Amino acid sequence: MKPYSRRMFNTTLAGGLLAMGMPLPLTGQGGGSQVKKLGVALVGLGSYSTYQLAPALQQTAYCHLAGIVTGTPQKARQWMQTYGIGAEHVYDYDSFDRIAADKAIDIVYVVLPNSMHAEFSIRAAKAGKHVICEKPMAMNVGECDAIMAACREAGVKLGVGYRLHSEPYTREVKRLVREQAFGRVRFVGADAAYISAGNPDQWRLDKSLSGGGALMNMGVYAIQSCIYGCGKNPVSVSAREFSTRPDYFRDTDETITAQFEFPGGTVGQMMTSHNAQANRLYASCDRGWFELQPANNYGPLSGRTSEGPMSFPHESQQKLQMDDFARHILEGTPNRAPGEMGKRDMVVVEAIYRSIREGGKAIPIDLPEGYGMGG
Amino acid sequence: MKPYSRRMFNTTLAGGLLAMGMPLPLTGQGGGSQVKKLGVALVGLGSYSTYQLAPALQQTAYCHLAGIVTGTPQKARQWMQTYGIGAEHVYDYDSFDRIAADKAIDIVYVVLPNSMHAEFSIRAAKAGKHVICEKPMAMNVGECDAIMAACREAGVKLGVGYRLHSEPYTREVKRLVREQAFGRVRFVGADAAYISAGNPDQWRLDKSLSGGGALMNMGVYAIQSCIYGCGKNPVSVSAREFSTRPDYFRDTDETITAQFEFPGGTVGQMMTSHNAQANRLYASCDRGWFELQPANNYGPLSGRTSEGPMSFPHESQQKLQMDDFARHILEGTPNRAPGEMGKRDMVVVEAIYRSIREGGKAIPIDLPEGYGMGG
Repeated sequence: MKPYSRRMFNTTLAGGLLAMGMPLPLTGQGGGSQVKKLGVALVGLGSYSTYQLAPALQQTAYCHLAGIVTGTPQKARQWMQTYGIGAEHVYDYDSFDRIAADKAIDIVYVVLPNSMHAEFSIRAAKAGKHVICEKPMAMNVGECDAIMAACREAGVKLGVGYRLHSEPYTREVKRLVREQAFGRVRFVGADAAYISAGNPDQWRLDKSLSGGGALMNMGVYAIQSCIYGCGKNPVSVSAREFSTRPDYFRDTDETITAQFEFPGGTVGQMMTSHNAQANRLYASCDRGWFELQPANNYGPLSGRTSEGPMSFPHESQQKLQMDDFARHILEGTPNRAPGEMGKRDMVVVEAIYRSIREGGKAIPIDLPEGYGMGG
Repeated sequence: MKPYSRRMFNTTLAGGLLAMGMPLPLTGQGGGSQVKKLGVALVGLGSYSTYQLAPALQQTAYCHLAGIVTGTPQKARQWMQTYGIGAEHVYDYDSFDRIAADKAIDIVYVVLPNSMHAEFSIRAAKAGKHVICEKPMAMNVGECDAIMAACREAGVKLGVGYRLHSEPYTREVKRLVREQAFGRVRFVGADAAYISAGNPDQWRLDKSLSGGGALMNMGVYAIQSCIYGCGKNPVSVSAREFSTRPDYFRDTDETITAQFEFPGGTVGQMMTSHNAQANRLYASCDRGWFELQPANNYGPLSGRTSEGPMSFPHESQQKLQMDDFARHILEGTPNRAPGEMGKRDMVVVEAIYRSIREGGKAIPIDLPEGYGMGG
């Protein structure tokens, strides 16, 4: 990553944006030339916050990094220095609830291990802050419901960290599906997998923290790809689990394949793994096909259709995502990845695990049409 | 198709080949300049014989079209005229066994509906002719065994009509796997599907003639892709069937997805359908990937790896296939697609249908290591 100097961000925000060659956003708030940027606090300063979200928040036009929540004092000092964050906007997990009084913070982005998503999303909502919850939304459907209820009661917005819904190749796929550019989608396939070879004690491989292995991590992307790759929610799923390194994957799933049935007869198929590398979306339609490969990494993605290559300029996906969420709050633009989307995917995850427990049986999925599709 | 005039093939074979700009084959037989070409009789003059095999046999260097077997006198007359076949090399299904005395015929290629493969392959073997049996080899494993036994007893060679094993992109895939060019294959996926929209009374949609639908037709290619895409025979399979047009697909399978487990932990996944269009092979390895798309049509195929595009010149796959089989007979080169390969695939087909009947349960597959891999 390009290092960020403190000086770089000590200039005024508007001046900083101009210096970076970026247009001044017109938010439509206040009618003047004043730039209203929402303040974001990142909860959990692991590698995703460090290498993706914080750098992206230096590029965002509608929000900026305004606070941090971490249990590690050394990290707090580093971040304060790197990003010029005042001590009054730094919290640990015990002092977190005092964020309610911090007027600089509008949005709390929960980037903790899965087992802590519900607790901190709910505490953020109760503090009156809008919430972005990293994917997967929670450990189970019940926790998703609790997060949604807390946000509803607090009157705050809720988004899930599905960055791809703001990403241009993914948006193009959604457009091709919506406009039936090649007719109806008849088959959609998605793979989302990487080879896990690091510390076997990492939280992603500890079921009490992650809720599951490949499926709860990359699998959620494959589920997403299948769903936006045909524009519908599945009506049933069957699945199978494969395990070849039980010494390493002690209590989490290593590889899972699943098969979806969608309304109207579209068939879907996905593979997710912590023991293979794959990153693809493919959809076959009445009169052509489209595919992304890679389909869900941090980009640039790459895609083609039966008519030729796709080509879109690359921008930070996280920048686009957080700006879209900020605009949803500021301007009422659509919520690209609402809580319902995160809950829907958790409904699918639970059905997949159930099919595996029941020996591959097809499990019905009862989701309202269009539920959780986002904007 | 380019029409073939009688005059074009009434020249001597060697002269004809020279006129077509093709090199004279040196078979190594007899040590002289005499070209020894084996005579092929096609049994069943449907579209595959008409548009693929007969044209290919005008390009083959080691065999040629020498006889036909058909139940339709009008077709017999047309073919005799087009290809200059004498009446003494024309048979119907009743007179077929007299082919034993026809010294011009060395190979019988059975291109009939699946339900007739076993009968005519066995009759051909009993007539002392080498046999190519179109894929799928038969209606079930028992019939495969009967064909293999008949060929063994008659001392004739047996090949299955798996043209891709002579095709350069497919051979490149087999080389990448064999030499572990990108390390071990960890995941392999294959789709083989087309949209069936013609006469619902066609033999492929009549289970008594085909033995099954998409799986017995394109599905065999997807099984093949998964197997040569990782170089191993599966140890188990689970599968699911999807049906959305039961009015059209009255007694054959419309769409099937299947999941394979291979020795050493490789996972495989396939989709076959008569209600979608897809034609792909993808394999993800320790250190890279390779894919073909299309992977199993009549070509030219197209492929790429994580290091860049593949590129091979296009030739008729059927020409390459039949020449390889003729050289196997003439020179003892490897049998690219022996009967064991056809039987192995039928073992897998039966396990897939059984998994579907048993609600998606994983079905063990007991095949000797390397069985049916071919040359």
